[in-house]
Amino acid sequence: MPSALRKTESLSSGLNYKGGNVIQEEGDHHIDQLWGIHERLNTLRGHMSKQRLFDDFDNDSDEGADEETVLPQSYIVIRIDPYIETTTLQWLVDKIRGKRRDGGAELIVFKEPYNPNEGVVLHISASKIKFLEVAEEMEIQKSDKNGQIREFTVSDLDEFLPSGMRVEDLLTVAERQTIIRHELENIRALAEDDHIPGYPPYALYEGQSILHVCLQYKLIKKMYPLHDHEALKKLGRKWYLSLFGKQPFEEIRLYFGESVALYFTFLGFYTTALLVPMCLGFLQLLLSKEAVPFFCIFNVVWVTVFLEIWKRRSNELAFQWGTIGMTSLDEPRANFHGHMGVDAVSGRIQPQYPRWKTNVKMYCASFPLVLLCMLGAFVIMLSSFWVEDYLRQTDAPWSARLLPLPSVIYTALVHIMNLYYRKLATYLTEWENHRTQSQYDRHRVTKLVLFEFVNNFMSLFYIAFIIQDMDMLRNQLATMLIILQAINNVQEAILPLVLKFYLSKVTDFKHYFAKIKRRLSHDRNSFPKLPYAYSPLKGIPEVRSDDERLIDAKKEGKLDNYEETYDDYLEMFIQFGYVVLFSSVYPVAAFWAVVNNILEIRADAFKLCLIYQRPMGKKVKDIGAWQKAFEIMGALSILTNCGLLCMNQMRRKGPLVQEGEWILTFVLLEHFLLGVRYLLHIAIPDKPEWVRIALARRNYESKQALKNEKMQKNRRILTRKFKTVHGQHSQQQQQQQSIL
Amino acid sequence: MPSALRKTESLSSGLNYKGGNVIQEEGDHHIDQLWGIHERLNTLRGHMSKQRLFDDFDNDSDEGADEETVLPQSYIVIRIDPYIETTTLQWLVDKIRGKRRDGGAELIVFKEPYNPNEGVVLHISASKIKFLEVAEEMEIQKSDKNGQIREFTVSDLDEFLPSGMRVEDLLTVAERQTIIRHELENIRALAEDDHIPGYPPYALYEGQSILHVCLQYKLIKKMYPLHDHEALKKLGRKWYLSLFGKQPFEEIRLYFGESVALYFTFLGFYTTALLVPMCLGFLQLLLSKEAVPFFCIFNVVWVTVFLEIWKRRSNELAFQWGTIGMTSLDEPRANFHGHMGVDAVSGRIQPQYPRWKTNVKMYCASFPLVLLCMLGAFVIMLSSFWVEDYLRQTDAPWSARLLPLPSVIYTALVHIMNLYYRKLATYLTEWENHRTQSQYDRHRVTKLVLFEFVNNFMSLFYIAFIIQDMDMLRNQLATMLIILQAINNVQEAILPLVLKFYLSKVTDFKHYFAKIKRRLSHDRNSFPKLPYAYSPLKGIPEVRSDDERLIDAKKEGKLDNYEETYDDYLEMFIQFGYVVLFSSVYPVAAFWAVVNNILEIRADAFKLCLIYQRPMGKKVKDIGAWQKAFEIMGALSILTNCGLLCMNQMRRKGPLVQEGEWILTFVLLEHFLLGVRYLLHIAIPDKPEWVRIALARRNYESKQALKNEKMQKNRRILTRKFKTVHGQHSQQQQQQQSIL
Repeated sequence: MPSALRKTESLSSGLNYKGGNVIQEEGDHHIDQLWGIHERLNTLRGHMSKQRLFDDFDNDSDEGADEETVLPQSYIVIRIDPYIETTTLQWLVDKIRGKRRDGGAELIVFKEPYNPNEGVVLHISASKIKFLEVAEEMEIQKSDKNGQIREFTVSDLDEFLPSGMRVEDLLTVAERQTIIRHELENIRALAEDDHIPGYPPYALYEGQSILHVCLQYKLIKKMYPLHDHEALKKLGRKWYLSLFGKQPFEEIRLYFGESVALYFTFLGFYTTALLVPMCLGFLQLLLSKEAVPFFCIFNVVWVTVFLEIWKRRSNELAFQWGTIGMTSLDEPRANFHGHMGVDAVSGRIQPQYPRWKTNVKMYCASFPLVLLCMLGAFVIMLSSFWVEDYLRQTDAPWSARLLPLPSVIYTALVHIMNLYYRKLATYLTEWENHRTQSQYDRHRVTKLVLFEFVNNFMSLFYIAFIIQDMDMLRNQLATMLIILQAINNVQEAILPLVLKFYLSKVTDFKHYFAKIKRRLSHDRNSFPKLPYAYSPLKGIPEVRSDDERLIDAKKEGKLDNYEETYDDYLEMFIQFGYVVLFSSVYPVAAFWAVVNNILEIRADAFKLCLIYQRPMGKKVKDIGAWQKAFEIMGALSILTNCGLLCMNQMRRKGPLVQEGEWILTFVLLEHFLLGVRYLLHIAIPDKPEWVRIALARRNYESKQALKNEKMQKNRRILTRKFKTVHGQHSQQQQQQQSIL
Repeated sequence: MPSALRKTESLSSGLNYKGGNVIQEEGDHHIDQLWGIHERLNTLRGHMSKQRLFDDFDNDSDEGADEETVLPQSYIVIRIDPYIETTTLQWLVDKIRGKRRDGGAELIVFKEPYNPNEGVVLHISASKIKFLEVAEEMEIQKSDKNGQIREFTVSDLDEFLPSGMRVEDLLTVAERQTIIRHELENIRALAEDDHIPGYPPYALYEGQSILHVCLQYKLIKKMYPLHDHEALKKLGRKWYLSLFGKQPFEEIRLYFGESVALYFTFLGFYTTALLVPMCLGFLQLLLSKEAVPFFCIFNVVWVTVFLEIWKRRSNELAFQWGTIGMTSLDEPRANFHGHMGVDAVSGRIQPQYPRWKTNVKMYCASFPLVLLCMLGAFVIMLSSFWVEDYLRQTDAPWSARLLPLPSVIYTALVHIMNLYYRKLATYLTEWENHRTQSQYDRHRVTKLVLFEFVNNFMSLFYIAFIIQDMDMLRNQLATMLIILQAINNVQEAILPLVLKFYLSKVTDFKHYFAKIKRRLSHDRNSFPKLPYAYSPLKGIPEVRSDDERLIDAKKEGKLDNYEETYDDYLEMFIQFGYVVLFSSVYPVAAFWAVVNNILEIRADAFKLCLIYQRPMGKKVKDIGAWQKAFEIMGALSILTNCGLLCMNQMRRKGPLVQEGEWILTFVLLEHFLLGVRYLLHIAIPDKPEWVRIALARRNYESKQALKNEKMQKNRRILTRKFKTVHGQHSQQQQQQQSIL
């Protein structure tokens, strides 16, 4: 696909594209508005003069290439509701293209040829200058020439360009997409926008993210970034196509963003770590039952050490990725609302919402509601067991035939409950109004995990501790770990692949048909006119109907949306539970988990690259609520394993030994293990030494800079006050100043 | 005591005292060495011209006041071994007075009249400029005119002086003492100092703290700061003399430093918090035994919430005191050793010692040793119980008379063990070579607390869970809480007071006698000559023998040394253990603890002000290892109370109910309580919102300053590169620069 390559290069023409005067205006606007833009522009022009200023875009299409406007790469596609009001569309497009001072985002927009069934489809891009400026605003971290990671600043541009690197390659495609999304999401309602034009009932308040409101009311059907086929192919070769190779984490990060890269790093780390309990599990099978408590101790140590080392690793990555400094006081997420006010930290105008309100909502409403749901799920689970028990004990002839019914109904119910609970959790978390995306994710995941825990593990607890049937428990675990996980992998990767194959046949056919049709229409010298003049889009350049971008956008628009890493983490979390909670009863669990995960990595990679829409890059500094969830699971595993051991011993020894003494022994073992866990937790520092030092150095440097800044300011004041000693010493001082 | 007041004022004459040329030299030296000293000197002189430049120092003595040199206030007294070699003394004094470039501390030294029995006694002070410079170097935090707390810088001097405040009052006496100690302790051995002159076996290596080595080898007998009687009297009136008034925390901090102030804040906070379990305890006495588990739950919630809120309060204080940013990478403590190298954080030359070596020492040597000692103490405790048991069961006629013997011997043994263990713990912690004082304290306290725990609580555990004698437990607790604590308070405050009274009678008499003797000798026109010329002290000014400073120094030198806050915290820790560990058996414990603490606060205050030598101010950001120790005690209290409840229930119900079920019930209760504790721990943030925001703001500001600094540097580079656009826009740029 050589055109894709060319498309990437054509980016360099972004500044100079002829089709509209958008960028030139932007440039002028910023010259007036921002300090130092002269130098920046100059630097940029210096860089660009080295490259081709104009690229002819699409050589595949022979017809009329010279008359076409050269359009920049399309980063994000917005599909608008076909039935939208004209005024609304006009308003929306104006906001996206508009000047900053008018509340606009200053982005480049171009449209697809109008198709009444699909509605308006807009492609969003930005000028090179815009990218760099927003990169500085968003405090994107970049590695400079010396390999030090720091915030990108336009004035330091040269510092971030190792020899041979072009300005165009500085920001990855994922970063550009993030930048454009950031700008789109930050189009906020002004004081005069009290409702969406054309839709008086859809109220707006000052500072609300307009794009999010439109998405909420379905005025925008979809918004998604486009894949970069060339990069994707390269990535895939190193990733899902090499079964035992190391995953290309850095490339994953550059393509999919930090969130996805962290998931795959975690998955790899976890799988490697699982080799330890796998070996221990096999050993345990060989040795006598008396040795089981020792394995218990080993497992506890493993779980704790694994999670602590992961925390260190995660902090290391966060440092390298420049996300370690993220706090809950960072820039708010798009949907965060509140009255606009001066931010206490940065002094910018941002929505303000008191934290205590969020806390009250969380503890007084969400928390009880979640508990209620968990209780409900628990009762439903119990009922299914009771009904099954009842059926087993009844002598009626129909009872045997109805025996599988309760579990089937229960499974179906769980599925339905999950569906609604997810909506509830999302709604509640949104309503709690957390400031940052990380906080939002953490609280949403916490709610979901609690419910999933009840659904996935309560039945096992019931079997283990109430029915006390170890064979049933073992069978259940084997089923879950071997069969269900295999099915899951097939469902995730192979099934969609088959579907995709068939679908692509269909779309290929459609595409072919469309081409013939277009050829025919082209013969009639023009594309059929739009059913009515779509005035809001008049000034906006249009991509040609056979443009690669248009085809990609259409194809990818049909793909499923990759909904965060939540489901993938959940899968791992449940597996982790199966492995650690009952390891004393079913020690080969770790082996099956390893086998599954080796496939899982590839299946997940495959599905991300080829089956889903390209997800938006998302910055994270850790795995969020999952860290705590895994830790609590580790603590629970101590309880369950000690409980299981205790029960087994009691059953084997029979009533010869006093019950109370056995229980006491195991309670002591359990407390000892909990103590070991706590000690390990304290003894292993969260951050590696080098990260701590590097952070302290950065902190020290910036503190010194602040001191110097204040010193210089004060020196000016003091100089004005005490003019006596000046003159004779000024030269000496200047020398010393340059040293400082 | 009006002379004390005048003494404080005489400080202002520090720069201009006529007795030596030390300060003028210093000034010159710094002019060459440090940037901006011209302005600083100027500013200082400006300030000082407003005040009297010369204060006549001691009006009480009528004789020869005009011939005396005016000496500044004495901040630290150093008592030197009478048998020290002359070369050593010479070397030491040179180091203290010497220039920085020669490895000296540039301090002002004056001596007491020589007394062969006492040896040389030196008083240390510093010039005003020195104080301010070191204050900047030590990054002392001060509140500026706007009430914002930030690092003091000399160039910002005016910013830190609200109208009416003099430069002299900027630094508190405690801060000045800290500064002088800092300078003394930071006299480090140079490459050529391979041993202490005069003592070839006492080796030195480069970078070692000379004063500490001398203290270690007893070449310096004592080093202590002096009390400020006027301030002390004012403080006492508000503190130990007002039984129910709020403690004057800010004044305590200014006088005794952060460490002591934090202890008293904690003590006050803890006592207030104890009112809750006190009320609950009385309620529990009134209600039936069935309600006890509910009180257990309340107590757990109380313990956790109390400790979490204390953490918040402590962080608040640390922020206000400017100590919240202290980390283990700060400036090393005086005894930290290692090869000299460039510090990775600050880039200064400092001793470097790899952290892993400390860790290896800690985990491979100290930790097993401490465990061994704990085990030993435990075995000794058990033996005493066994011997007592044996004596009780033997019918021999002597056995009854010997019955108290085991516990008496045990008590004595514990005392001796404690003495040696303390030395061991100090030695081990020193040997581990922790970088900062906070780390050192934390690890030392951890070691000590573990051992004290065995000594103080193991016997109670034995009574509660092995002998299972609840009445004995209750009696034991009552004895400890009522009688022992009362004795303790008497021992701490009243006994020394009585002793002090009699001692002061004796010293008064001696003083009177000395005065007469001096009068007589004065009549013979001169003080008796020194037995031999003490050449090293030739150039050093001498205080007159009837100088207040000399009398104070002598008096305070005889007082006991206040050895950190360790013993005071330990007392509270043990009391806390008595209150929470067995609250279900002895609910009035909290009441006695409150009664004791109200007295304890005054007794501790009294002893600090009047009985001990003035302690050196010490910066801390939290209560260190005690936070964890109290938290673990809280967790343990869940275990013990559930255990006690379980046992009591079993005994009451008799063998009617199955033993196993009871135990299970209480194991469940215990786990539930542990869960509640964990949730509370997660739900309560460590720092109050306003502290988090203030820290984030400061962080943001310094980040911005670093960015600006880099931007300016780069602008210069860019300007050189692209000179084209300059000239016409320069004015506009400058305007924008000032906005930035």
